[in-house]
Amino acid sequence: MQTLVEYLRNHVPLTREIDIRAGSQTDHWLELTAPLHPNLNDKQTAFGGSLATLCTLSGWCVCSMLCRELKQEIDIAVIDSQIRYHQPVTGDPITARACFPAIENQQRFIEMLRKEGRARLNLKAKVNVGDTTAVSFEASYYARLPDKHLG
Amino acid sequence: MQTLVEYLRNHVPLTREIDIRAGSQTDHWLELTAPLHPNLNDKQTAFGGSLATLCTLSGWCVCSMLCRELKQEIDIAVIDSQIRYHQPVTGDPITARACFPAIENQQRFIEMLRKEGRARLNLKAKVNVGDTTAVSFEASYYARLPDKHLG
Repeated sequence: MQTLVEYLRNHVPLTREIDIRAGSQTDHWLELTAPLHPNLNDKQTAFGGSLATLCTLSGWCVCSMLCRELKQEIDIAVIDSQIRYHQPVTGDPITARACFPAIENQQRFIEMLRKEGRARLNLKAKVNVGDTTAVSFEASYYARLPDKHLG
Repeated sequence: MQTLVEYLRNHVPLTREIDIRAGSQTDHWLELTAPLHPNLNDKQTAFGGSLATLCTLSGWCVCSMLCRELKQEIDIAVIDSQIRYHQPVTGDPITARACFPAIENQQRFIEMLRKEGRARLNLKAKVNVGDTTAVSFEASYYARLPDKHLG
């Protein structure tokens, strides 16, 4: 997870401005965090653009971690996403939690990627304020072996 | 439009890092732009987080411009959005174009805001690469008179 965050900070300048950091992780989810201050909006709560970005990246991290099983370079991109802002986010740090998909979906994804060189993965993430979901997020990611590996 | 961009740059720090600028405007749409360089991803195309943010803010600008008719302070927030990334964005500057809603929807929105002190507006935006839509975006915004004005 730390390696992924370093990769993002080194290759995507805006992630340094948002100041993303690796958070907690279990077998079921991982968290990506960012301090509130550089991500404030005009109402002194978390900026929607930062929330959307943090959720998108947390899903990207889940997808990247699954792809490690193939032990080779994989291109991952988000295809589409839906986000719902239920209430203002005031917690510091802002914490986006992305869930690993069910084991059978993980296996199907990896198998497809291995067989076809490309696969799609649907993921969910959220940002809580206390025990309440303040932001809910769903996205599809596309993973593929880089062009040079495709026959 | 320039005033709105200055407001955002002064009150939302991340908009300065994305380096948002006022673009063109007609009766039907307005454009918000950002230079590609600070918004690159690891594939040297526009970062999804920047694209989502730029689209969200272009809609916020449309909503803000409509609210000017009330000649008083209005709080505007995005409630939910959907974004689809059809192809990588390579243009510089990145340009998000948000459409003004049909006149009857504009009128309904303003009338509701005047009468109820709050109203919802659905908007669309996109980012083109040449003549092709590279990113399509839809969102709902919530506008309301600040609490102190509500009876």
